[in-house]
Amino acid sequence: MIVLFTDFGACDPYVGQVHAVLAREAPDVPVIDLLHAVPNYDIRAAAYLLPAYVDEFPPGAVFLGVVDPGVGGSRRPVMINASDRWFVGPDNGIFEILARRAAEVNCYEIRWRPRQLSASFHGRDLFAPVAAMLAAKNTPEHSRCSLTPPSGPPWPDDLPQIVYVDHYGNAVTGVRTSKLEGKRRLEIKGRSLEYARTFNEAAPGRAFWHGNANGLVEISVNRGNAADVLGLKVGDEIAIKE
Amino acid sequence: MIVLFTDFGACDPYVGQVHAVLAREAPDVPVIDLLHAVPNYDIRAAAYLLPAYVDEFPPGAVFLGVVDPGVGGSRRPVMINASDRWFVGPDNGIFEILARRAAEVNCYEIRWRPRQLSASFHGRDLFAPVAAMLAAKNTPEHSRCSLTPPSGPPWPDDLPQIVYVDHYGNAVTGVRTSKLEGKRRLEIKGRSLEYARTFNEAAPGRAFWHGNANGLVEISVNRGNAADVLGLKVGDEIAIKE
Amino acid sequence: MIVLFTDFGACDPYVGQVHAVLAREAPDVPVIDLLHAVPNYDIRAAAYLLPAYVDEFPPGAVFLGVVDPGVGGSRRPVMINASDRWFVGPDNGIFEILARRAAEVNCYEIRWRPRQLSASFHGRDLFAPVAAMLAAKNTPEHSRCSLTPPSGPPWPDDLPQIVYVDHYGNAVTGVRTSKLEGKRRLEIKGRSLEYARTFNEAAPGRAFWHGNANGLVEISVNRGNAADVLGLKVGDEIAIKE
Repeated sequence: MIVLFTDFGACDPYVGQVHAVLAREAPDVPVIDLLHAVPNYDIRAAAYLLPAYVDEFPPGAVFLGVVDPGVGGSRRPVMINASDRWFVGPDNGIFEILARRAAEVNCYEIRWRPRQLSASFHGRDLFAPVAAMLAAKNTPEHSRCSLTPPSGPPWPDDLPQIVYVDHYGNAVTGVRTSKLEGKRRLEIKGRSLEYARTFNEAAPGRAFWHGNANGLVEISVNRGNAADVLGLKVGDEIAIKE
Repeated sequence: MIVLFTDFGACDPYVGQVHAVLAREAPDVPVIDLLHAVPNYDIRAAAYLLPAYVDEFPPGAVFLGVVDPGVGGSRRPVMINASDRWFVGPDNGIFEILARRAAEVNCYEIRWRPRQLSASFHGRDLFAPVAAMLAAKNTPEHSRCSLTPPSGPPWPDDLPQIVYVDHYGNAVTGVRTSKLEGKRRLEIKGRSLEYARTFNEAAPGRAFWHGNANGLVEISVNRGNAADVLGLKVGDEIAIKE
Repeated sequence: MIVLFTDFGACDPYVGQVHAVLAREAPDVPVIDLLHAVPNYDIRAAAYLLPAYVDEFPPGAVFLGVVDPGVGGSRRPVMINASDRWFVGPDNGIFEILARRAAEVNCYEIRWRPRQLSASFHGRDLFAPVAAMLAAKNTPEHSRCSLTPPSGPPWPDDLPQIVYVDHYGNAVTGVRTSKLEGKRRLEIKGRSLEYARTFNEAAPGRAFWHGNANGLVEISVNRGNAADVLGLKVGDEIAIKE
């Protein structure tokens, strides 16, 4: 199985072009479009979102993880084996959190190159063929490497920020519910929100927070739009207290 | 064949997660993404839209119909056999119109439960595996039941309201063209619209109504955006006269 | 392989209905959703976009190319063999540029008709079954014809206008980079933009132009949104100089 996780957009022609490559190179492998709406160019949001979905996919799954604003520059293409799955994409931090949390990680720079490599679409030209090879148990030319640490201040183990806003207006954070140790009050933009286990327990129209179905802290409004009600966007900071 | 009809959004990670479950549990069954843009939480809109699409899918098709604002509450999960197809989802009214119009309906409460059931994503955890079982001719544990009538005033056989607005700006109503008995004038928001058989018969830029390709009354503008021109949104009421 | 290229919208129920027909009529043929966000009703934009993607798909591929504002009127349904691929859709200009650039073109009016043909959705009712037949090496009833030239002034070989804006805000034009003969300065809306080979070569936030991964001139902003920064939309004219 090949799983696509990108900021390519679900409506543009890019995803179809990747599917065309996979249909040619790995015709019998199922392909899942997990997410193509990672916030544009937001490597860090991608890094904290991706690990939340990995366990749902079977061992042997190959993830194409591409958020790649530096495409055409010097960042290396990598393939990583972690938790019995492969991850293929740019060495720009997108796999940083995933690798940090895995029991065992093996990281390789991809040495294989396609006959034609565009300047701006390595997802199609380089990463998709490599994912197809790995799904077919072939190994493209590679050399062992270490992941390059993201530039800037060190990234925390959980990110107390909004990393994704869905079409209902639910705001997903980079904090795992399993790391909260009984804390129950979430603060965001000067407001304090209460916890509810389910949408159904929260009064309609009232903002609350809960652990979403992928183990991340999420801010929601029962039958409403939390992002609109609270004015939330990707990058907004949260604090969880008490 | 499994047909997905939800308000999960075509761009969020939810549909991909459902596909992953179906790929695991029913790997050889084709899956069709019919609609993931049912207006959010709008059970009634879903109930009048869904029947318009059913006949296009072959007997034996399994519909996953999930618009589920009460997820995590007390509403029951159901599976319904009607018109030789299966419908799997919450017992919250989404299948009300479909069942009402079918010659024969058998309704069952789903007793089967997955090993892990999240509080907010039964589409993935419960309904998708059940759909996979039914598509494979297996029957999950169940007990006979009746559909719970939607709360509030009784629902009409056809709903004279807008239930969907597409990306062209066409406004689809819950009224079947087969029920109009020659009526030709449609009123909406104080305006009266004329009928045209095709887009091509209507003057460019002029709002008109027609029977859409799924048998529902629809308001359109030839080479224009009816929702913008007339200020239409889901829930707006129409009347059809003369 | 069947490749879908339409203005049906990625989020509406239309694409799923086409997939249902293809699953029934050509169950073993892979289907690629290349683009469903062609600007609404914009035949000319479609005509200049489509050829940019064709070479990526294997010989024998069948393209369903449907942007069809005149559906239900007198425009003919056609199937065209060009560059070893099939193209199925309305004879309204959408295949004009593709045919003009091909070494050899054979054009046929489709005489076959389905048992049921809706007034507004020939993509589902007529073109999809024909695409399925061609993909299965069956030939629907047809007669040789010539493409109808688009009405209005003659279309140029390359279109110096924006034909697509993607979700990053990149503005794709109808000009092939291979036709520029070393010209380097692009003018749009009174501004002059410089060329950069890659996103990475351009300063973040600065608008530039480049040849995109499908051989078309494109206006972009590194880690920004060119359409927002420059106020670009489909139809805006460009000039390339010096």
